[in-house]
Amino acid sequence: MPQPAKHAELDHPTLDVLAQRWSPYVFNPRPVEEEKLKSCLEAARWAASSYNEQPWTFLVARREEPEEFAEMLGFLVEANQAWAKNAGVLLLTVVCRTFQRNNKPNRVAEHDVGLAAGNFTVQATALGLAVHQMAGVELAKAKAAYQIPDTHDPYTGIALGYAGDPALAEEQKLGERDQSPRPRKPLSEIVFQGRWGATAKWLS
Amino acid sequence: MPQPAKHAELDHPTLDVLAQRWSPYVFNPRPVEEEKLKSCLEAARWAASSYNEQPWTFLVARREEPEEFAEMLGFLVEANQAWAKNAGVLLLTVVCRTFQRNNKPNRVAEHDVGLAAGNFTVQATALGLAVHQMAGVELAKAKAAYQIPDTHDPYTGIALGYAGDPALAEEQKLGERDQSPRPRKPLSEIVFQGRWGATAKWLS
Repeated sequence: MPQPAKHAELDHPTLDVLAQRWSPYVFNPRPVEEEKLKSCLEAARWAASSYNEQPWTFLVARREEPEEFAEMLGFLVEANQAWAKNAGVLLLTVVCRTFQRNNKPNRVAEHDVGLAAGNFTVQATALGLAVHQMAGVELAKAKAAYQIPDTHDPYTGIALGYAGDPALAEEQKLGERDQSPRPRKPLSEIVFQGRWGATAKWLS
Repeated sequence: MPQPAKHAELDHPTLDVLAQRWSPYVFNPRPVEEEKLKSCLEAARWAASSYNEQPWTFLVARREEPEEFAEMLGFLVEANQAWAKNAGVLLLTVVCRTFQRNNKPNRVAEHDVGLAAGNFTVQATALGLAVHQMAGVELAKAKAAYQIPDTHDPYTGIALGYAGDPALAEEQKLGERDQSPRPRKPLSEIVFQGRWGATAKWLS
């Protein structure tokens, strides 16, 4: 199967697994092997977190369980449903915004869910899978349907699967998005030294 | 130099670079090579983000600039200063919680800074470096000193450097922490299927 090439245009060398990661809109509706899914979740499990709180939980719906998959798909906003329906696995991340040991607010809980989702994504990429994360989730509906307790909140969606051929996209605009460039701000705009706005001397 | 072994005890296979990552308290006060620092920041740059907003900025202070290093160290809480002073590089992440194109709140801005910090950490680990992230930062002081604009907020600290020998720790308790086990919740507690609390069938 032809794989769309969306490698990062690097200014400095990085691991291939980081440069090759991107978020496809076109998925091949193919199940994800159980062992691969477990490895992605295991990678998430070992992320760092403040006070080792591990404020992340994952609700998982696989293509192999069509009713569960359809239910979770229904909690995504419509624009996401249009392409996420072809993912092999859908996941909903759940965040706990208070420390379990003392009930105090965890200022970095969402950040730490990001660390776990990042590990998940690196592992997936290494296994030939693709990940497309989503903020567009009907949070209140999902919270009620999955009986998520008051201490926790649904937070983001994750589509995991095999990237598809953009030429075979059901909607042409999705295929086009998967062939467009991947813009990023240059390091000189996001790395400062000494004070805000001052380009780091060693960067130039 | 003897490297402390703090590999994850994996239940499912992952990339070595994910299993080998941990957050040391004992650093060897050795500078970080400029090219390695650039690669870590480049990795952060290519993280995913909602609407490709890239809501992250990094303020960087290297050992090679002792005054800048001391200034940033002073914005960490005292417990972090005790060990972070031996890092090769200190960084402060800065988050933009509104979308630049329409000024609306970005619900996942902190999560996406986590994705960038995660990429940074993976790249660092691959280069033989260690990363210890910190929530304990004097945010208001740092915001004023670095002249961070109202649109942005300092968020977390990052210590980057070479892990040191725990036996040579200045404070014994820090060396002990670096030799203690790395506990994690089992996947059965953080991965659910169908509804909250229901262990995924394919996990057992």
